Formats: sequence, structure tokens, C-alpha cells
Amino acid sequence: MKTLRDYIETIPDFPKPGVMFRDVTSVLDNPDGFQLAVDELMKLLDGVEYDCIAGVEARGFLFGGPIAYNHHKALIPIRKKGKLPRETVEATYDLEYGTATIEVHKDAIKPGQKVVILDDLIATGGTVEAAARLVEELGGEVVKMLFLIELPELGGRARLAKYDVASAVCFDGE
Amino acid sequence: MKTLRDYIETIPDFPKPGVMFRDVTSVLDNPDGFQLAVDELMKLLDGVEYDCIAGVEARGFLFGGPIAYNHHKALIPIRKKGKLPRETVEATYDLEYGTATIEVHKDAIKPGQKVVILDDLIATGGTVEAAARLVEELGGEVVKMLFLIELPELGGRARLAKYDVASAVCFDGE
Repeated sequence: MKTLRDYIETIPDFPKPGVMFRDVTSVLDNPDGFQLAVDELMKLLDGVEYDCIAGVEARGFLFGGPIAYNHHKALIPIRKKGKLPRETVEATYDLEYGTATIEVHKDAIKPGQKVVILDDLIATGGTVEAAARLVEELGGEVVKMLFLIELPELGGRARLAKYDVASAVCFDGE
Repeated sequence: MKTLRDYIETIPDFPKPGVMFRDVTSVLDNPDGFQLAVDELMKLLDGVEYDCIAGVEARGFLFGGPIAYNHHKALIPIRKKGKLPRETVEATYDLEYGTATIEVHKDAIKPGQKVVILDDLIATGGTVEAAARLVEELGGEVVKMLFLIELPELGGRARLAKYDVASAVCFDGE
């Protein structure tokens, strides 16, 4: 039987030379792969009480939808600046070159709500750390950070040490 | 009981003066609203035989995931140019000012596959028309175009007359 890892293709030198890109779209392409991915992510939420999934644009949306639907939770999009129509709060984080800004609707998370932050992949953890700041600024509590793929050598877990981080597949120095 | 329409907020003058923006994020914010949206979209697929859902970035991803999962289908992301790691085909379409280009992985759709194209909203239909060209270039057949929200006065349905178009909520001259 194929494992989730078997469905993840590696693209060498994308988006630039030297990077081994772990491709989640190869999981989506296959009904069995997509189902397995969602099921394994949901297993990591066993016993976690929460109110909503905050999915990080855009690949976090792909997996956040089925989990929110199956668990009857809200799905809160965390988007790049300028895409959300209502009043937002924003957080800026560092990229390799320059910065990026993400936003969430101010009324999307209520004080005291328990939030699961979901993205497809954790590398340095910069994006989800900024996402957590947004959740906390609105008074929400980050009860879990959930990823399909983890690249541990990039240090995301250490950076996010104060959070409960879980990933379905870990590529360790491969 | 609230209908799907009740969950959709209208933001006047976004993203620019004179536009009545129909906001799908207000559907997502509420577990009942999100469930209702997905269930109504799935109802529109009753009796439709298909192989995969092609979701248009980024809001198409939010609703495509649960439907693909529930129906055990593949979920094919149609993305803005430059985001997909493997070999792609691309299509360019006109915007009010300038053009935009979308892509899909060349191996994501196999010849003869039946494809449902999904987006959150149909206005002029330009984006999904380009998405359909991508599907057809790869030998796929567009068996349905599915939208949460339709703005009929912008003429999308006429432009897409050769396709089977369905929407869950129609805002007709409101």
C-alpha cells in the first residue's frame, strides 16, 4: 500500500538551483493520495478541541477545506495583503530577500477561540509565525500548527517552540 | 433557517467604487454556512460523472477540497503563472486593464478525463473560459462549471454557452 510519502514528488532545482521542492500537487492529483493526506492531517487533530481552521494562502486552502467541513468548523483564510474585502489585521515577516505581508479579517476570529493554523509545508516557519501573531492579536489561541510536509533542517520547529507543531510527513536531510 | 444567500455579505465599493463585492469569506466564517455551501455545490453535481475537480486559485481551492474529498476525486489546482513546479500549459485572458495568465500541470489531466471546473464566483466568465481551454488542450472534457455565486448581469453564462454552467446563489441586479 502506498504511504503518503510515496505520493509526494520531489522536483530538483525548483524554484531555484539547489532547492529540492516537495510537491504537494502530486498528492492532489490522485484521489487516493488526496484522501490519505486529509485523513492523516485529521488524525493529527484527534482529541484537539478547536473552533476554526486558519488556512494559509494558497496551498493551506486545499487541505483546510475538507478538514473544516468534516469537523464542522469555520475555515478562516489567511491571505496575502490586499485580497480580503473587510477590515483586516496584518503581519509582516522576512523572506530571504525582502518581506511579505499577510492579513486576516478582524471579525473572523473571536477572543477566546481556539484556532488550528494549517499550511502545506513548514520550512523556516516564518509565515505561520506571522499567522500566529494575527490569531493572537485578535484574542484567539493557537492550539495546533498543522502541516502536510515538514523540512526539519530549516529549523521551523525550533522557531515555533512555544506552539504545538505537527506534520504528516517529515523529509529529514534526504 | 438561514439560506446560503443569508451568509453572503455584500461589501459596497470593493475593490473599487461602484462595485458590490459579494464576499464568500463570510460563508466560510461560520461552520453552518461553510457546510451549507459545500452541500449545495455537491447537490449541483448530483448525477454528474467526473474524474477530477479543477479549482481556480485561490477561492476555488476553498470549496474544491471538500467536494473532491467527499466524492473521492482528484483536486487539480489551476494557478496563476509561476506557482506550479512541474511542466505546465498556460492560457492568457483579458482583464479590465491588461491580461492575466493561468496554468495547470501538463500531467494533471489525462486525455478523456471528465473535469468539473470550480470557482467561487462567475462574473464575466473570462477566467473559467481560460481554465476550460487548459483542460481541453490536455484532452480533458469540461462536464460542468460550478460556482458558489453568479452575477448574471455581467454575462458569464452567455460567454460560456457551450458549457454546462451551474451556480448555488444568483444575485440578479440587486
